[in-house]
Amino acid sequence: MPEINVAIVGACGYGGCGSVEILAFHPYAKIVALVDQEGVGKPYSSIYPHLKGFCDMVILSPEFDSIKEKVDVVFFATPDGVGQSYAPYWIKRGARIIDFSGDFRFQDLDRYKEYAKRIGKPEDHSSPELLKDAVYGLPELHREEIRNAKVVGNPGCFAVSCILGLAPALSSNLVYLDGIILDAKTGVSGAGKRPNPTFHYPHRYDNMNAYRIGMHQHVLEIEREFSLLTKQEIKVTFTPHVIPLTRGILSTIYGRLKERCDVKEVVQVYKEFYKKSPFIRIAGPEEPQQSFYVRGTNFCNLWINVDQRTNTLIVVSHIDNLMKGQAGNAVQNMNVMFGLAETTGLMRPGQYP
Amino acid sequence: MPEINVAIVGACGYGGCGSVEILAFHPYAKIVALVDQEGVGKPYSSIYPHLKGFCDMVILSPEFDSIKEKVDVVFFATPDGVGQSYAPYWIKRGARIIDFSGDFRFQDLDRYKEYAKRIGKPEDHSSPELLKDAVYGLPELHREEIRNAKVVGNPGCFAVSCILGLAPALSSNLVYLDGIILDAKTGVSGAGKRPNPTFHYPHRYDNMNAYRIGMHQHVLEIEREFSLLTKQEIKVTFTPHVIPLTRGILSTIYGRLKERCDVKEVVQVYKEFYKKSPFIRIAGPEEPQQSFYVRGTNFCNLWINVDQRTNTLIVVSHIDNLMKGQAGNAVQNMNVMFGLAETTGLMRPGQYP
Amino acid sequence: MPEINVAIVGACGYGGCGSVEILAFHPYAKIVALVDQEGVGKPYSSIYPHLKGFCDMVILSPEFDSIKEKVDVVFFATPDGVGQSYAPYWIKRGARIIDFSGDFRFQDLDRYKEYAKRIGKPEDHSSPELLKDAVYGLPELHREEIRNAKVVGNPGCFAVSCILGLAPALSSNLVYLDGIILDAKTGVSGAGKRPNPTFHYPHRYDNMNAYRIGMHQHVLEIEREFSLLTKQEIKVTFTPHVIPLTRGILSTIYGRLKERCDVKEVVQVYKEFYKKSPFIRIAGPEEPQQSFYVRGTNFCNLWINVDQRTNTLIVVSHIDNLMKGQAGNAVQNMNVMFGLAETTGLMRPGQYP
Amino acid sequence: MPEINVAIVGACGYGGCGSVEILAFHPYAKIVALVDQEGVGKPYSSIYPHLKGFCDMVILSPEFDSIKEKVDVVFFATPDGVGQSYAPYWIKRGARIIDFSGDFRFQDLDRYKEYAKRIGKPEDHSSPELLKDAVYGLPELHREEIRNAKVVGNPGCFAVSCILGLAPALSSNLVYLDGIILDAKTGVSGAGKRPNPTFHYPHRYDNMNAYRIGMHQHVLEIEREFSLLTKQEIKVTFTPHVIPLTRGILSTIYGRLKERCDVKEVVQVYKEFYKKSPFIRIAGPEEPQQSFYVRGTNFCNLWINVDQRTNTLIVVSHIDNLMKGQAGNAVQNMNVMFGLAETTGLMRPGQYP
Repeated sequence: MPEINVAIVGACGYGGCGSVEILAFHPYAKIVALVDQEGVGKPYSSIYPHLKGFCDMVILSPEFDSIKEKVDVVFFATPDGVGQSYAPYWIKRGARIIDFSGDFRFQDLDRYKEYAKRIGKPEDHSSPELLKDAVYGLPELHREEIRNAKVVGNPGCFAVSCILGLAPALSSNLVYLDGIILDAKTGVSGAGKRPNPTFHYPHRYDNMNAYRIGMHQHVLEIEREFSLLTKQEIKVTFTPHVIPLTRGILSTIYGRLKERCDVKEVVQVYKEFYKKSPFIRIAGPEEPQQSFYVRGTNFCNLWINVDQRTNTLIVVSHIDNLMKGQAGNAVQNMNVMFGLAETTGLMRPGQYP
Repeated sequence: MPEINVAIVGACGYGGCGSVEILAFHPYAKIVALVDQEGVGKPYSSIYPHLKGFCDMVILSPEFDSIKEKVDVVFFATPDGVGQSYAPYWIKRGARIIDFSGDFRFQDLDRYKEYAKRIGKPEDHSSPELLKDAVYGLPELHREEIRNAKVVGNPGCFAVSCILGLAPALSSNLVYLDGIILDAKTGVSGAGKRPNPTFHYPHRYDNMNAYRIGMHQHVLEIEREFSLLTKQEIKVTFTPHVIPLTRGILSTIYGRLKERCDVKEVVQVYKEFYKKSPFIRIAGPEEPQQSFYVRGTNFCNLWINVDQRTNTLIVVSHIDNLMKGQAGNAVQNMNVMFGLAETTGLMRPGQYP
Repeated sequence: MPEINVAIVGACGYGGCGSVEILAFHPYAKIVALVDQEGVGKPYSSIYPHLKGFCDMVILSPEFDSIKEKVDVVFFATPDGVGQSYAPYWIKRGARIIDFSGDFRFQDLDRYKEYAKRIGKPEDHSSPELLKDAVYGLPELHREEIRNAKVVGNPGCFAVSCILGLAPALSSNLVYLDGIILDAKTGVSGAGKRPNPTFHYPHRYDNMNAYRIGMHQHVLEIEREFSLLTKQEIKVTFTPHVIPLTRGILSTIYGRLKERCDVKEVVQVYKEFYKKSPFIRIAGPEEPQQSFYVRGTNFCNLWINVDQRTNTLIVVSHIDNLMKGQAGNAVQNMNVMFGLAETTGLMRPGQYP
Repeated sequence: MPEINVAIVGACGYGGCGSVEILAFHPYAKIVALVDQEGVGKPYSSIYPHLKGFCDMVILSPEFDSIKEKVDVVFFATPDGVGQSYAPYWIKRGARIIDFSGDFRFQDLDRYKEYAKRIGKPEDHSSPELLKDAVYGLPELHREEIRNAKVVGNPGCFAVSCILGLAPALSSNLVYLDGIILDAKTGVSGAGKRPNPTFHYPHRYDNMNAYRIGMHQHVLEIEREFSLLTKQEIKVTFTPHVIPLTRGILSTIYGRLKERCDVKEVVQVYKEFYKKSPFIRIAGPEEPQQSFYVRGTNFCNLWINVDQRTNTLIVVSHIDNLMKGQAGNAVQNMNVMFGLAETTGLMRPGQYP
């Protein structure tokens, strides 16, 4: 099996760290460059001391010409705007791209502009020519396109949890397309590594809040995917919340069922839809789920319920926001892109407690 | 101002402790008896050492004849089934009753039976004759009835947060009566003091979960109140979640607006509805709320939003589950019952951080 | 009883917030000015929304001439260096000073310089003429001097916990003066309000660490007080640790007993020493203590133990670092300075759980 | 390399779970039986759902005759008293024993009795004949004896952290043998899986405490090991504390240095002592440590400091109490017993954040 040479740009953020944690034990991947503006010249383990002895490579500055090794794939674990600037350079060098931001989640420039506006970034895209062939990196829905993609836009963490949670129901026409409610709860690591008054320990420890109601940027990719599945324009109501824990997204998804139906049939629809997706685990009402079941892993656990009194489908979707919601999903994309089994290097449980 | 003599039955649970914390500083109340099966004969501060010097009364066993003082009101901070057994005794002694369980939240025996079934209790009620005059103890909606009530059923914590959050919209006919979604997140103290594998620290610390989907008992009192407000049968979808924090309920409430409307008008409707309710604070979209704003207090903060894209009313309701959701609300009821200002002994902020 | 007009400089830090929380309910104090560089022109409750309705005063910039009210006492809840700059101005205006930093904890300029060096500040003091009459604001040891002090240096939080924990043993000559070990554990709020990578929630949540071993600045005031008590130079070993909780300092204090002695006698020595100190609670070995017993309060709970096997005195000292370790102690100083009962406005328990 | 067949008794506790998490990925070990009183007949993943797909073996009741496979080693991850009862049975079947309790930590019956008394167990030992050949399972100190041991007593978690932290200093005669202070802080998982009022989430979340001062049972094995290293009787002062986090022990160890010495020399002594111990990482004063550096791993990080002012050696020892303090160390013992590299199956970092 040929070795895959990986460069990680933005190595010192949480997304970079998660990628290193996985790739250091991946049987076919080799990290050849760790790039960041922080910690240049120091060993990576001086930034992440838990990796001492596992990854002591020296961090490089973003002057890419100094990287002499062949690079097969670049992970841009960087904020919005960075990947789009440097992608052409790397494509010219023969590398493929997996970008963790919103830079390549949209094939359509107008949608990208709407996205950019929501996050307060300039609406111009640096590499618009790459957009139309960029692939949305959710393997459960786009496995085949990812296989040959040059540029993959790794999805937003909330989007992963919500899209996976409702795709089968939409695909099988089980719910009305209006009135869809996505109520998402995320751990604090979703906000990244940079300290902030909102995530200062004393502020956060016994505190929770909703935020960006009706305005969160991830809703755009969710609606786009839902529309692709149903061939219709869909608008959803999405409310994110911050919860005082570190890892995990739990999204409670509500859809109004078109017909009375037995929850067992719904479970069957879901199992069928995901039968080739090794990271999706489906549970019926008799198997309540908790977020720690997926903590530290690339799994997505879906707990399927039907409230018979109101004829509502309620799917509770659980992921680890830093794994299936970020670095784990990126490696899964890489596996698909390079013809490996999707689970390579990713089939580990978390620790308990 | 006459002194109010209070007996607290179930003094050693969280509801009892919260009541003592408030009543020890209430200018017109005097605790005359603390009753529990636990800690009988010991000072209360041996069970709750943070109250040393503030409440060192000796805990009495539930043999009420030994209590010689005049008792004006009994707080039953007890599990379901206890208050209904002892209420007649105390009424005969001239006391009024505030019960923290579901024993007196329903005037209708059939509804009570449905409630009892949901929590796995016997469906018979020990004092059915008291039910029809029992008053649902949510002062914001039932102030006048509470004033003269002999028996008040203090509401469930989730119910307080959800009912207060949607009552004005229902009362003003703003939303459709079907498709109402109540997505509630509670801190761990809501489950009470008794240790349990689910609330063992190592299990809970980085973990969250939904539970009892479509089956939680509080939904019954919510639907009853909503129906009273609208004169129509209403069924709602209610999903509770446990969150790794100690105090607080945040309920995100979704209603489909009948007409396009400006959120400012909705805010106005809410302010008008609650203009005589000193513990309700209304915030518009420009004032995001966090649960610590009400931590340790009897306030309910309502954050009003309209998602224009889907024409959905989104109200985020914040309470402290042990205060406005339990002991604080009980004291508020007591104040109303005894002709005091509703805020007496309750107008304190929490501590931060 | 005359009203005490209080100005708080540095109102927007944790120390300012704690002071406001207490003074808003103090029967004889009136806050006349809240000063900070942050939030100028906005209501205080926009910075601390849990105080909405309790303190909505507008925050003033540090141009003190604009404050027209008579000011009896200024709380400098500011970083090191601020109080010493502005104290002369306020003294000229007839105000007395309570400073929360290290600016006025030392009467001796050389000691101050050593302190300043430890925290990386310039060694010059702006108001050296005020130092010699400044009083160390630990009422349990310096009550009489505080009464008439113009300038009080409120102690460091660690220092409060360690000094109170060992003072009686030193005063009664129970332990050897060498080999004293102070092992202190603090909650995260001790580091203040400013966000920092070390106190970012995801970093801190399941993590603890020792720091500044042998170099912490609070050790200087501890040693000075211990030397005052024993009339001998004392050097102690002090190790601070950060613990993932918000409020509380627990210091475990080890002293080598000079003679075999019964722990009951030691308890008696402590009770005698603190018999006029209403905030000190002494517990013998049979009454294990937890930090929540003092959470949210101005108490210091001392748990006295003797390890007979090694003849070691072990005192576990518990305070709330933001109360007895900061704002509560400051108000206690104010009470003493203005002839009030020491407990005025401070005699409240915390909430549990 | 021959496969090692492992049976785990007490599989459903934290020690069992930790063992399964490691052994499921160990290249030479095969779990052949999971035994517990809880969950008999159910798949292991119904008790620990995060292991679904990784360990779905059915749990067996403790009727060992029904286990037909050859068993090479039995892990008794059981409370005190269980391993000693069943060890002879398994030895007769040709298995070797690794016991997680105190059953086989002492070769001397009198010391065992003292231990048993401290934990309130009967002082009789069921298999006294096995004691004298039982080996204390700390590979860093007893590697050679473990290699051929039939019965290994896996050490107490506090003991691992304290012994590893001071052994080199004692072995090199750096510190006085009296006045040794061991101040240990443990996460809540150290208390095991059984719910308890003390570890109920709402009680524990913002709370810490010292406990069992001068009486903890682990002190006996610590003193025994220290005495073996120095050939002298040693008594130490050991104070355990519970901290609101899940994983980790941080022990701050104080020894009075016999002579003035440079910390660099001490660091050198430690590095030399542990040069063949792959899980020990030594850091000098310039490399402060945090407990997350070892979270989820079998490492022990030692931070070496000298307080020159008091001539005190301060070693801060960090382990994950469930790994190097329990299951990880047990697997390390197994590796040694079966001639494998000590690190086999254990060389993984934790996850961050």
